[in-house]
Amino acid sequence: MLSKLGRLLIGRSLKTTELKSEKFNVLWGLPVLSSDAISSVAYAGEEILWVLIPVLGIMSYKYMFYSALCVVFLMIMVTLSYRQTIDAYPQGGGSYIVAKDNLGTVSGLVAGASLTIGYILTVAVSTSAGTAAIISAIPFLSPHRVTITLFFIFIITIGNLRGIRESSKVFGTPTYIFMAVILCMIIVGIFKVKVFGYVPKPVYKIPEVVSNITLLLFIRAFSSGCTALTGIEAVSNGIPSFKEPSQKNARIVLELLALVVLIIFGGVSYLSTLYHTVPNTEVTVIAQLASQIFGHNIMFYLVQITTTIILIMASNTAFTGLPLLLAFIAKDGFAPRQFAKRGKRLGYSNGIVILCIISSILVIIFNGETHSLMPLYAVGVFISFTLSQAGMFKRWVKLKNTGWRHKAVINGIGAIVTFATAVILGITKFLQGAWIVFILIPAVVYIMVEINRHYKKVAQQLKLAVNERPKEIDFTKQKRYVIVPIDTLNRSFLKALNYARTISNNIIVFHVSIDDEATARLLSKWHEYDIGIPIVVKKSAYRSVVGPLVKFIESEEYAAGSKDTVTVVLPQFVVTRWWGNILHNQTALFIKTMLLRRRNIAIVTVPYIIFEDNEECLKK
Amino acid sequence: MLSKLGRLLIGRSLKTTELKSEKFNVLWGLPVLSSDAISSVAYAGEEILWVLIPVLGIMSYKYMFYSALCVVFLMIMVTLSYRQTIDAYPQGGGSYIVAKDNLGTVSGLVAGASLTIGYILTVAVSTSAGTAAIISAIPFLSPHRVTITLFFIFIITIGNLRGIRESSKVFGTPTYIFMAVILCMIIVGIFKVKVFGYVPKPVYKIPEVVSNITLLLFIRAFSSGCTALTGIEAVSNGIPSFKEPSQKNARIVLELLALVVLIIFGGVSYLSTLYHTVPNTEVTVIAQLASQIFGHNIMFYLVQITTTIILIMASNTAFTGLPLLLAFIAKDGFAPRQFAKRGKRLGYSNGIVILCIISSILVIIFNGETHSLMPLYAVGVFISFTLSQAGMFKRWVKLKNTGWRHKAVINGIGAIVTFATAVILGITKFLQGAWIVFILIPAVVYIMVEINRHYKKVAQQLKLAVNERPKEIDFTKQKRYVIVPIDTLNRSFLKALNYARTISNNIIVFHVSIDDEATARLLSKWHEYDIGIPIVVKKSAYRSVVGPLVKFIESEEYAAGSKDTVTVVLPQFVVTRWWGNILHNQTALFIKTMLLRRRNIAIVTVPYIIFEDNEECLKK
Repeated sequence: MLSKLGRLLIGRSLKTTELKSEKFNVLWGLPVLSSDAISSVAYAGEEILWVLIPVLGIMSYKYMFYSALCVVFLMIMVTLSYRQTIDAYPQGGGSYIVAKDNLGTVSGLVAGASLTIGYILTVAVSTSAGTAAIISAIPFLSPHRVTITLFFIFIITIGNLRGIRESSKVFGTPTYIFMAVILCMIIVGIFKVKVFGYVPKPVYKIPEVVSNITLLLFIRAFSSGCTALTGIEAVSNGIPSFKEPSQKNARIVLELLALVVLIIFGGVSYLSTLYHTVPNTEVTVIAQLASQIFGHNIMFYLVQITTTIILIMASNTAFTGLPLLLAFIAKDGFAPRQFAKRGKRLGYSNGIVILCIISSILVIIFNGETHSLMPLYAVGVFISFTLSQAGMFKRWVKLKNTGWRHKAVINGIGAIVTFATAVILGITKFLQGAWIVFILIPAVVYIMVEINRHYKKVAQQLKLAVNERPKEIDFTKQKRYVIVPIDTLNRSFLKALNYARTISNNIIVFHVSIDDEATARLLSKWHEYDIGIPIVVKKSAYRSVVGPLVKFIESEEYAAGSKDTVTVVLPQFVVTRWWGNILHNQTALFIKTMLLRRRNIAIVTVPYIIFEDNEECLKK
Repeated sequence: MLSKLGRLLIGRSLKTTELKSEKFNVLWGLPVLSSDAISSVAYAGEEILWVLIPVLGIMSYKYMFYSALCVVFLMIMVTLSYRQTIDAYPQGGGSYIVAKDNLGTVSGLVAGASLTIGYILTVAVSTSAGTAAIISAIPFLSPHRVTITLFFIFIITIGNLRGIRESSKVFGTPTYIFMAVILCMIIVGIFKVKVFGYVPKPVYKIPEVVSNITLLLFIRAFSSGCTALTGIEAVSNGIPSFKEPSQKNARIVLELLALVVLIIFGGVSYLSTLYHTVPNTEVTVIAQLASQIFGHNIMFYLVQITTTIILIMASNTAFTGLPLLLAFIAKDGFAPRQFAKRGKRLGYSNGIVILCIISSILVIIFNGETHSLMPLYAVGVFISFTLSQAGMFKRWVKLKNTGWRHKAVINGIGAIVTFATAVILGITKFLQGAWIVFILIPAVVYIMVEINRHYKKVAQQLKLAVNERPKEIDFTKQKRYVIVPIDTLNRSFLKALNYARTISNNIIVFHVSIDDEATARLLSKWHEYDIGIPIVVKKSAYRSVVGPLVKFIESEEYAAGSKDTVTVVLPQFVVTRWWGNILHNQTALFIKTMLLRRRNIAIVTVPYIIFEDNEECLKK
């Protein structure tokens, strides 16, 4: 039943040979890879106002605009830096790869850990912001915030398990509509005030305060706005997805992306200063602007819908990014190997599922108001920026190919600027949650290193020595010790006993007595049965079946020497429906798990199948 | 590590022979078995006021007292009925047993289902009410309501897994203190008003309303107060726990219990009418009374603390009752067998753990405000009352022993009264959640019947036919087909191969190719190895290992006939730490699960142990 449901949701399995992904041209590469970056304008301006409004009141709008300018400057620097990464890593240069390549394993792992945390938070933050956009338009949905957000995460997860990457047009179109709608809003909004002399009516009360701007406050506002930069690295990760000439196309897309973000972020910030928006938990800044500029008509709803869609799609960036990153890390042996395994539909499904689970938990814990996660998110992103830029800087200095000085300067400045921002974010947001990042990243790196140590050790212990050959064994001369545990004398046991007799004539039937009465019944049956196979009964004071069995195998009374392998044949009846397993003591499974920890043992499981219909059973 | 933590929390394993429980005399039996019943006074009066106050305002107190009188009458009837159950069932007469015995299996299961639901709700409701009592005294804990409640559930769960039944004095003492403190409060409270002429100051505003009492409203108030009766059946369940003469002692305890509940419930209700308490979600009625009567001194806190303790202990009643009930039902084959198995400390630990989990989930879902669960709770309890009384009635009519008419009349009236109450509760509380009970009980009964059908079917299919003997097999003449799957040529595989060679010289090494490159590497190694065992390679388009293996076993090319058993020898490396398993694809486990569904197969697992320390490995 479960597997049917799975197939319905995820689709039929795909062959490995069907692995090919659509290649993007510039036109469709831009919207697909930019949704994360572009969507951040939906909250970056708002983040700045959250910092300023409570302190500066009406004065905030002036400094908001200055903060936005600083963010724009930072974005230009980062874009220039990433252009060079695209040139240097045609196979895709995520921070993990660039840092590991140039700065060493630990730096790579730090970048990997930051990115992992960043991706997880992207999903939580973006889907929550998407829900916020819906709630701004349809306020009575407010109590269902968490449910709606989880629904979005679920949909994206299913989509990614199916493999939605193929459909760039499905993804690209809403991004273009969003761009168009927001551009339209910016133009109309500016005209309305500047040309037609509209005087915006304040909808929300701006606190009356007389504080003045301080450097610290400005820095805090700026650092809050830095969330606008998140997602900009997606292009350099995605180079292999571009049509040839892929690097050139990627570069063009990166530049266009920066331009679009710049116009939209700058425009929306400017509108905020004109229309005096006040951030609150019920109505987003974008929604406030749209309702003042367009009124509550079709355009307003179009803005809200496209904002929602683009935010949801932004979380999709993480769903393509994180599983790929984890697969890279797993292939290097620093993450559980399962992450490197392709699922039924060829996606790295384990990574997708883990991302779904962790981000859902975050949404539940934070009750769908992930505003408070923003600091964690931004710090992680800027740490990975810094490592990537620093890696590139070192690369140029080492390689010293033509024009290396120029390139080193650009990446060097990029590294310094992003490092400075990371430090600013870390300090200004420390108490608001950034401290968690400084615990999480080392913890994740430690786990990754330990995982690697484990894999190395396993490989070492499994490796065959030179010329290590199997033993020469004449199986006819083997003395095989076989134990068949018995609980009740039934068909399942009989089948196991029959099998045991095909491999040995040295069989002992072993019974652990937990209930005297049941044992007496069994023994009387067994003696009546009389087939010349000895039965050994041991009492178990603690009601454990495994303990006495292990003790017996080790004991003197049992003939096997310490070098002999003892075979334990376990009858196991198998129910055909999944829920059937809930109804039976999984004793066989438990015995197996415990016995597996011993060296000189082989465990044979002989299945006896129980059919749901007795008729079905008779047919077979 | 996990097992160490478990031992620390739960204690060492106990031998089956250590199974003995403390027997109660009247003095200690009363407090231990009565905590559930007595604790319900902490909320029953409040429940009545919740119904009346919003409609009647100040008039409520008059009708509250009348409602309380009706509840007291009902309690006397139920007590008289249960006295007779005690006489008839010296081994303990829970509703499940009485109903099943006299009314048939389905009635028994309905009673069992109602009781199960009731016990689960007891835990959720009592622990939440206990937390409410704490919060009334220490209001700043209010945001941690859920955490505190979950902590209480956790503590009781651990206590029951250890087996806390032994310590009746630990349990009894706070109950006696609670009784004493509440009695003291009742006396002081009445004196303060009636003798010293104190005029209570209304602390909370009583809504000004001019509605008058209606029959429907009165019935609703009465039905809300019926929660005071819950827990009264505990005595008749617990007869075997009494010292000889156990039935007589149980009867005395039941009568004393009714008397205590009567005094306390009546007294508290009367105080409410004197002091005009107003129920609200922040401060309980008991707390309002205590603070008006004693002021905020030591006595106030004593009332709150003992109320909390007795409420927590009430949920302990469910923790002793439900696992025992489930064990009964499981022994009859209507619940998963695991419930009938005693855990390490001889308690029915599976039932305890399930109760902990479900009640915790309820507390989380209802955010620790389980006031809304009260209707579900009460309906379930009264359904089981009715079935138990009806069962007793039928018993007397059937047996017709001396004085049966008299007894039948008492139980008959009991059945009618409790049935009427159940109907009233069902109707008046239908929309407030009682409808859930009418879906849940049939659902649970259906599941129980299905479980029984399943067990019967399994038993049927496992049963040996008369004279069904094992086959006569000469193991030396067996042709044994053995398949050893290979992934990489390593020591774990080699060990499996060595074992395979001890049981057969008819071995095929089987490789499923997922990655062409890896396969090529393996083959070149294998040919170099050259040990004369054939290797078969199958490509797997869908990256599944099991599919091609099963296909191969079935295929013509493999010599085994459909009647032969094929042995599959699986190398499995075993990591010694639990977390190690997360790091490896559990392919062997998966193969095993899939192969077990086939009939003519035996699966041999050959463990190869990986040590955490390479040194540890060398030593062995």
